[in-house]
Amino acid sequence: MKNILDAMHWRAAVKSYDTSKKLSPEQLDMLLESVRLAPSSAGLQPYIMFVVDKPEIRQKLRAAGYNQAQITDASHFFVFAVPTNLTESLAAHYIDVVAQVRDVPRDTLGGLEAMVTGAITSKPVETRAEWATRQAYLALGVLITAAAVEGIDCSPMEGFDPAQFDEILGLKELNMKSVVMVAAGFRAEDDAYSTLTKVRYPREELIVIV
Amino acid sequence: MKNILDAMHWRAAVKSYDTSKKLSPEQLDMLLESVRLAPSSAGLQPYIMFVVDKPEIRQKLRAAGYNQAQITDASHFFVFAVPTNLTESLAAHYIDVVAQVRDVPRDTLGGLEAMVTGAITSKPVETRAEWATRQAYLALGVLITAAAVEGIDCSPMEGFDPAQFDEILGLKELNMKSVVMVAAGFRAEDDAYSTLTKVRYPREELIVIV
Repeated sequence: MKNILDAMHWRAAVKSYDTSKKLSPEQLDMLLESVRLAPSSAGLQPYIMFVVDKPEIRQKLRAAGYNQAQITDASHFFVFAVPTNLTESLAAHYIDVVAQVRDVPRDTLGGLEAMVTGAITSKPVETRAEWATRQAYLALGVLITAAAVEGIDCSPMEGFDPAQFDEILGLKELNMKSVVMVAAGFRAEDDAYSTLTKVRYPREELIVIV
Repeated sequence: MKNILDAMHWRAAVKSYDTSKKLSPEQLDMLLESVRLAPSSAGLQPYIMFVVDKPEIRQKLRAAGYNQAQITDASHFFVFAVPTNLTESLAAHYIDVVAQVRDVPRDTLGGLEAMVTGAITSKPVETRAEWATRQAYLALGVLITAAAVEGIDCSPMEGFDPAQFDEILGLKELNMKSVVMVAAGFRAEDDAYSTLTKVRYPREELIVIV
């Protein structure tokens, strides 16, 4: 386990993965659990992370993802998707889960339900998927950090054809759409990107004290 | 330093901060550096994190933030903002930084500049701020995870009046807008939220294997 800054320095947008190195079941479980535990606005977790296991689906996604090798070559491949029809029913479901997890009668949660419902209904319908996408990116940030700390390579990627991804993953029928993808595994020895000097803006450009 | 899953279990959306406990300079530096090292699409880091130090500004922001006590009571308070007029000039600036950091002549970076410029110009103008916001949320996820691992409490919050925040922070003049805020510090002993059982959807709802 690396400390946070060592981990963030070590990580890189790996493009060439070692196809022979696989995440252990424990490493995969840790990554999935870090996503499950990620916080989200009002706790609503308005996304699903698809773990694409079937090689033939990964091949199809690679074709729809500008042929990026990470999609098939990394040990694991994930796609975050968000609902396209977010309504207050998600709030009702969330409250069901709260009642179950905290073992309290559902009818004691009226105040929380009103708040959580408001977090959805206060947003115009056309901005809800984008709000959900922001939450998915937050979870993606958790995933990337968790991976780095454990010495697992992880490449988030936005370069793919969303309509084709949605078709291949059958997301339309689920009223969902793909928003970002992530490869996870271990860098190949000859990966050029992980040996380049990391480029970040100087502190004073990115962090402003007022 | 906690392991990732212990850290994610430990963290909570703290509402009541201990006003007497402050981040050490080293802790603050670690948090800021984790944000600086966060990855972003094409490496463009299209956001600024404001560290609001002045108590009178924090008071004003609290008034514009539904009077949430975390805004003034936590050791530190941050606001992420994104550009409202994102153009290819950001790509040109990024390439300047790449040339400097990697100590290579700028004119050897034409291919990279074309790619990075395309990452901006390929997006309709009206979606660019939202794309930048997604990157800010990714950095927020890194920040939250870094804080948790180091035992620092951190409360991301979306509940504020963006127009008032922009006014108070002078963001309009910078062609920027506020998108999400974060309090960081240490939970008060009587914080009710950090003792509640954490609610997350069951694994099979959130993570789907295909």
